[in-house]
Amino acid sequence: MVVEEPREAAATTGSDSSAWQPVQRLRAHEQVMSQIESRILAGHLKAGDHLPSERDLATMLGVSRPSLRESLRVLESLGIVEIRRGGVDGGAVLLDGPGAGLVNLLRLQVALGHFTQRDLLDTRLALETWSCAEAAQHAEPADLAELSGMLDAMDDPGIEAGDFNRLDAGFHERIAQASGNALTAHLMGSLRLSIHRQMVEAYSRLPDWRATTGTVRHEHRLILEAIRNGDAPRASTLVQDHIRSFYTTGALVDE
Amino acid sequence: MVVEEPREAAATTGSDSSAWQPVQRLRAHEQVMSQIESRILAGHLKAGDHLPSERDLATMLGVSRPSLRESLRVLESLGIVEIRRGGVDGGAVLLDGPGAGLVNLLRLQVALGHFTQRDLLDTRLALETWSCAEAAQHAEPADLAELSGMLDAMDDPGIEAGDFNRLDAGFHERIAQASGNALTAHLMGSLRLSIHRQMVEAYSRLPDWRATTGTVRHEHRLILEAIRNGDAPRASTLVQDHIRSFYTTGALVDE
Repeated sequence: MVVEEPREAAATTGSDSSAWQPVQRLRAHEQVMSQIESRILAGHLKAGDHLPSERDLATMLGVSRPSLRESLRVLESLGIVEIRRGGVDGGAVLLDGPGAGLVNLLRLQVALGHFTQRDLLDTRLALETWSCAEAAQHAEPADLAELSGMLDAMDDPGIEAGDFNRLDAGFHERIAQASGNALTAHLMGSLRLSIHRQMVEAYSRLPDWRATTGTVRHEHRLILEAIRNGDAPRASTLVQDHIRSFYTTGALVDE
Repeated sequence: MVVEEPREAAATTGSDSSAWQPVQRLRAHEQVMSQIESRILAGHLKAGDHLPSERDLATMLGVSRPSLRESLRVLESLGIVEIRRGGVDGGAVLLDGPGAGLVNLLRLQVALGHFTQRDLLDTRLALETWSCAEAAQHAEPADLAELSGMLDAMDDPGIEAGDFNRLDAGFHERIAQASGNALTAHLMGSLRLSIHRQMVEAYSRLPDWRATTGTVRHEHRLILEAIRNGDAPRASTLVQDHIRSFYTTGALVDE
């Protein structure tokens, strides 16, 4: 799908044609990226804004539509813009939260050997250790109640492996959110997703995954208790042991 | 610049035409990305490999060259491929180390308000704290010698602000490398670069930047001493105080 038509109501900051500069040098798509980036960095374009239609923007920048489209694809893959189908709300819209750009990047980098599984695990440990300590110091009653509810749901004896895994991921990310740091939460989630396939395979190798959940559930309760008690060092140590023991059980890494 | 010509020696895994599938559905560039990604994830394409020429690849995939080019631009912006100019070595080559993709992504995300400066600082603190503790446990004599040499260079009384800043960044990244985790080192470097402009502005606001370097240099020596002594908790505490005090001095964040 492509940004087809100029929108009718184009009265956003991005469509002010006076300051868009016709592109001068080689590699037109780089010049386009650079102008869009500058506008975002300078605050002239912000989350929720529509970019001008592909046709208008190509004209204002003096580039071909294929060149412009290359830049839009790049921004889309980074999770910076979303390309919506036609109509009044169609076109490229700047997103107000992080997308899947980081996960896509990490998966390819691991596959190419830029980083190892071990690197991802250790980075996750660093971030989880920090998050638990911060959460122990800053978690609000609402955070604790929500975390507790997730653990209750994981106690359901009839739970399926997929739901258990999703709640498990949710518990860890919710702790990071309770620490108040959106970037750490996003990095942790992305690291986890990047190794998700391996996690699922590790689960499937376990002789009895339900038996393992007993340990996981017990450890989660201890971590939440330490956070509730404001015991940052204990929360950190517990989450570290918890993650390490899971990876060792799953034989994802050699200890 | 565009991948112009088929290369003469195309005997890489990527050019085996038998398994490339003509693209079937809408959004041709997504299908192209998906096939290239699958090959990387399955290990059929690896770092250092050339992709087939743009012309050959477009034919094998049954897509237009503009659609193919959109995918190549995305991979280039993520730092996954490098597009080289013509000749025998021209074309798209898979890179063997992480590029600037993460920095580009973080800068835009901060500008769009996905994350705050404070989020970046705290995430940096989490990673630096961890790295120093790991380095204290694992640093080799060669690591220590190199770190020490960097601090000696920073003691040069005639040093320029730019060189001082570069060595400062290098010292922190070298500690992460000594911890043996390429991803943590890359994240730390990327976080630092994402806020580099603010750092430089903070320096320029200081009444006397050389006076500040005295504190910075002293703190670096203490951190290196703790790493050398294998004192992980002390190394962690010192680096945390060091980074916090710099940001407070520079008034980059409110404490």
